[in-house]
Amino acid sequence: MPVTKVKTNKCFSGHLTKFSAHSESYGLETKFNVFVPEGEGPFSVLYYLAGLTCDEDTGAMKGTFESPAAKHGIALVFPDTSPRGSNSPNDTLSWDFGTGAGFYIDASHPSYAAYQGYTYVTHELPELLRETGLALDLERQGIMGHSMGGHGALTLYLKSGQYRSCSAFAPITNPRLCPWGKKAFAGYLKGGVEEGKEWDATELLGLSRVKEGLRILFDWGDADEFYLSGQLLPENFLNKVKELGVEGVQGRKREGYDHSYYFIMSFAEEHVAFHAKWLKA
Amino acid sequence: MPVTKVKTNKCFSGHLTKFSAHSESYGLETKFNVFVPEGEGPFSVLYYLAGLTCDEDTGAMKGTFESPAAKHGIALVFPDTSPRGSNSPNDTLSWDFGTGAGFYIDASHPSYAAYQGYTYVTHELPELLRETGLALDLERQGIMGHSMGGHGALTLYLKSGQYRSCSAFAPITNPRLCPWGKKAFAGYLKGGVEEGKEWDATELLGLSRVKEGLRILFDWGDADEFYLSGQLLPENFLNKVKELGVEGVQGRKREGYDHSYYFIMSFAEEHVAFHAKWLKA
Repeated sequence: MPVTKVKTNKCFSGHLTKFSAHSESYGLETKFNVFVPEGEGPFSVLYYLAGLTCDEDTGAMKGTFESPAAKHGIALVFPDTSPRGSNSPNDTLSWDFGTGAGFYIDASHPSYAAYQGYTYVTHELPELLRETGLALDLERQGIMGHSMGGHGALTLYLKSGQYRSCSAFAPITNPRLCPWGKKAFAGYLKGGVEEGKEWDATELLGLSRVKEGLRILFDWGDADEFYLSGQLLPENFLNKVKELGVEGVQGRKREGYDHSYYFIMSFAEEHVAFHAKWLKA
Repeated sequence: MPVTKVKTNKCFSGHLTKFSAHSESYGLETKFNVFVPEGEGPFSVLYYLAGLTCDEDTGAMKGTFESPAAKHGIALVFPDTSPRGSNSPNDTLSWDFGTGAGFYIDASHPSYAAYQGYTYVTHELPELLRETGLALDLERQGIMGHSMGGHGALTLYLKSGQYRSCSAFAPITNPRLCPWGKKAFAGYLKGGVEEGKEWDATELLGLSRVKEGLRILFDWGDADEFYLSGQLLPENFLNKVKELGVEGVQGRKREGYDHSYYFIMSFAEEHVAFHAKWLKA
């Protein structure tokens, strides 16, 4: 499992390094960026999962997470949003399915065997991070994301139980019931949208482990075009939280904000501070 | 001179708005972004000039200037880096000449009549900003930029005398003597590289007004590939400052940093604070 350093940029006295590696989950080469602050470490690890059409550079370049991460002494990891070059059917026909739209699930449909984003991020990526030799504390991991990546952060947090904290910007919280999610599940899953229950944050709130309490923070804007068109459905998630009496979930509707990185940058510092509280506890 | 609002994104409780307008300097439609913080204003104005290949979105999206600007109560203006669609010769043949590479000069060669970036930014853009109706204090302007835009910030500051402060990230400081500048001047100027003295920050230090003292801050990285290949020549500028005994110039070589926005974001807050000191004085 050789990990190759592609390039390094000094950033806030630390370093942002892009790596390339063969992913066994994807069966393909994949890339990821890692920001490691100045100092000896080891540093706890905060993953950022980007949204539709994005890649490993989007959050690193536009998210403005490096400044607060440097301040709190936390490392950041930015994986790509999907396998690339798998030549699966409909791979590159649309922006919301296939390349750039992996939805961080393990596809069960044989045509999409490369789409194993859940296994890649939760299991393989930490191993690749160990291979880098960077001073990371992989016992202390948090996860965040935007839109499709917010769905990723919520579902990986709820399913795997391996992250200390979870936050999201404008997450897709009930994909089984929104157009993006239905399209993704219908394609990637043998059992279609019904099987999608296993990859739906609102459904996953029913997991027995969840009763012990969660550490979830998310924000969305009331001027978000995808919230307004029913892609995000945060109220479904929050209603389920209330119905089940789950503790530790904070979802905040932000007046006037939309779906862009201008929204993300406005709350990036607050999200990193939320994770820092749990990662450094 | 109608100015059209293209879109608005809420950002740090203020707003980032993209405008489109017909530029008389360019003879073409052009775009610019304006960030206005929360509150009544009027807000002093800090321009950001981006580098080669960039446009009005680059600094707005990657520069991370909005957070400190919101904190200091300063507006930001991001113009495009060149006219677009002028169909001048060699307009789109290379990344360092023509479209995206206007060099913020007024071209004197008749083939490049559209390239009037100096007049556009110093004279026309403030008028367009008045037309927007935003709460801007155009008596209080500062200017900053990156690479080619750092050259722009320095030359516009030195030539026009209309800005209170100037800062730059990895600026081209002596374009007459570097490959990028020679190519640009040879193309845009009737008098070629020799005429380029009028658009060369190091040469402009000889202006009589400069003796009164300057307010210039710039940073560059010693791992900057374009510094290392002789495109930036910051020592030439600093030597001239010393030779002429000019006061108020601070140029700092930063260990390990390169030419990227990871470098810019690392010092963005410091640069905005530098301008705030003079803009709000």
